[in-house]
Amino acid sequence: MLKKESLEIVETRYFTFAEPPHPLKLQSGRSIGPVTLAYETYGRLNAEKTNAILVCHALSGDAHAAGLSPDDRTPGWWDGLIGPGRALDTNRYFVICSNVIGGCKGSTGPSSPNPETGRPYALDFPMITIADMVEAQRHLIDHLGIDKLFCVIGGSMGGMQTLQWASAYPDRVLSAIPIATALKHSPQQIAFNEVIRQAIMADPAWRKGSYYDAGQPENGLALARMIGHITFMSDQSMEEKFSRRLKKENLSFQFTDDFEVEGYLRYRGYNFVKRFDANSYLYITKALDYFDLSGLHFIPAVKSTSIRFLVISFKSDWLYPSYQSQEIVRALKRKHAYTTYFDLVSTYGHDAFLIEIEDETRLIRNFLANVGQS
Amino acid sequence: MLKKESLEIVETRYFTFAEPPHPLKLQSGRSIGPVTLAYETYGRLNAEKTNAILVCHALSGDAHAAGLSPDDRTPGWWDGLIGPGRALDTNRYFVICSNVIGGCKGSTGPSSPNPETGRPYALDFPMITIADMVEAQRHLIDHLGIDKLFCVIGGSMGGMQTLQWASAYPDRVLSAIPIATALKHSPQQIAFNEVIRQAIMADPAWRKGSYYDAGQPENGLALARMIGHITFMSDQSMEEKFSRRLKKENLSFQFTDDFEVEGYLRYRGYNFVKRFDANSYLYITKALDYFDLSGLHFIPAVKSTSIRFLVISFKSDWLYPSYQSQEIVRALKRKHAYTTYFDLVSTYGHDAFLIEIEDETRLIRNFLANVGQS
Repeated sequence: MLKKESLEIVETRYFTFAEPPHPLKLQSGRSIGPVTLAYETYGRLNAEKTNAILVCHALSGDAHAAGLSPDDRTPGWWDGLIGPGRALDTNRYFVICSNVIGGCKGSTGPSSPNPETGRPYALDFPMITIADMVEAQRHLIDHLGIDKLFCVIGGSMGGMQTLQWASAYPDRVLSAIPIATALKHSPQQIAFNEVIRQAIMADPAWRKGSYYDAGQPENGLALARMIGHITFMSDQSMEEKFSRRLKKENLSFQFTDDFEVEGYLRYRGYNFVKRFDANSYLYITKALDYFDLSGLHFIPAVKSTSIRFLVISFKSDWLYPSYQSQEIVRALKRKHAYTTYFDLVSTYGHDAFLIEIEDETRLIRNFLANVGQS
Repeated sequence: MLKKESLEIVETRYFTFAEPPHPLKLQSGRSIGPVTLAYETYGRLNAEKTNAILVCHALSGDAHAAGLSPDDRTPGWWDGLIGPGRALDTNRYFVICSNVIGGCKGSTGPSSPNPETGRPYALDFPMITIADMVEAQRHLIDHLGIDKLFCVIGGSMGGMQTLQWASAYPDRVLSAIPIATALKHSPQQIAFNEVIRQAIMADPAWRKGSYYDAGQPENGLALARMIGHITFMSDQSMEEKFSRRLKKENLSFQFTDDFEVEGYLRYRGYNFVKRFDANSYLYITKALDYFDLSGLHFIPAVKSTSIRFLVISFKSDWLYPSYQSQEIVRALKRKHAYTTYFDLVSTYGHDAFLIEIEDETRLIRNFLANVGQS
């Protein structure tokens, strides 16, 4: 029933702004410009420009959230959720997704040419934050002529951007759906990101970030991603997928990958090297760690009450545990915001936000229908 | 009340066996000899030799479980549990702890000289298993003239050795206390060990294991230990210890350790390099992953019924979650073994088995008192 027709080929577009002498001011105090954002749109913006939904992606995501890519017809990373008749129904909504600043999928990031040198920024790229990502997106939304977003939605880091939108621009957001996310990174989340960064930076091929002529720090980046993958899955989903199955008939008694789970991690790790820039991984993990909307930083009560929130978490997600979503809900309730919360049963761990499309569709569709009526 | 007098200076002793042509046969089919085990004893063996308790150490532990070391008067790693009037009361029991084969604290391991070359074994050291560790300990127990151990006890990998003793030598064990352990490593546990191994092996200074002339692969080993440390603590204990406290007043907006938790991990990681051999870390993690007493491998019912078991887990331990201890309990119950189980409240995660001395003391003292009476 959910499987309506998919979107066709979707072209990624590019929007460049903040040309000097008017660069984008960043939270660090530094500036950067020009800035390009890669973005895709699905569906049509209505005449009143009131049907726009901004989709925010997670750590290693990109602007290609739905439809098929022109080159190899790869479906978008949330294709099951976006399309005609789907939860983000492109017959009704104008859906936008842009690659974050700091990324490596067409938006300006550490692998982009530094206009001052003509060579990749590498570590001369300024540190960026979730607020900076949102600020860049805000320029894109202005460019598209949209005054108020019908909805901002995203999982994981996309959920942080969603919360940041509601916090920084409460007048420009009608509804917000933060999924499997947090108001701030816990020390455990920071710790995992720190070992991930150290895995990259310990690789001599990283060359203090200036590896672009020589190629990626493959081993370090693959290892970093392998660590990440463990945290994306749950103990149970790993048991269901791999148990203790061996790759060969017997234990090798060698330092090789005896177990299927080891081979899977290596495959996923080294595959990641082909598609993601190591420095972007460093910058984006730091943005995650710096994020903190707890305490006094969240939306002013008077503004937040006008935004409708749908908060979703997954019971087996131990990277962004349900209690962190419940902290979001408590913070919103304190501000008297209209808030609906679901803690969904799933065995998929943090990956659930990309996998549990059917449950998400049901919740999001109902929620958006009510937003439309209010 | 628990803090009775501590043991005085304790000397580590050494026992060498399996001299060629009678080397120790290993589970892999390979053999090794001679084998030296470093060990310590506390208290006195009674005339009937019925009061011996074998303490088995975890991944990075050693033979120095109690008392003070002669050089720098460092207390043993389980000193709170072993001593006059303590849970393992050295006024009553003769307590033994030996460094595992494959280790680097005085027992034969990859850093020991290979008798064939006079140089460290490095990767020529044969793969060892938990069963091999126990087999080596069995030689030590024979050497000490002990026919039947009053108790075998250990946490984490020490708990695996405890289970292995009961399984391999059910007639030589009167009671067994496996703590915070498992019948087998889950794919998640294997996955963490695999990224730990890859962190070491990706360091060029590892030199395929032959680094002994040049020094340890510091970055790789430190990173490996940092990953481990995250898994030893709980989300909650990290929150309590570090929260999001910064090392300096403000965020650096640089790739440095902004948060206290990052500094702590680095400190612990690089400190570990001074005291533990990288190759031993590889061998011992592989032994953990290979361990599997599930299914048909466990103790024959007729034998297990004569052993009394006390199984302990900790609710916040997510590296060796309570359900794994409950699997041990179910396996024992199926064999009609006398089994007592406690799932203790603690926020310390896996580290709890080293920290929650008071709770452990209460349970172990009562349990051993009953073993003595049966």
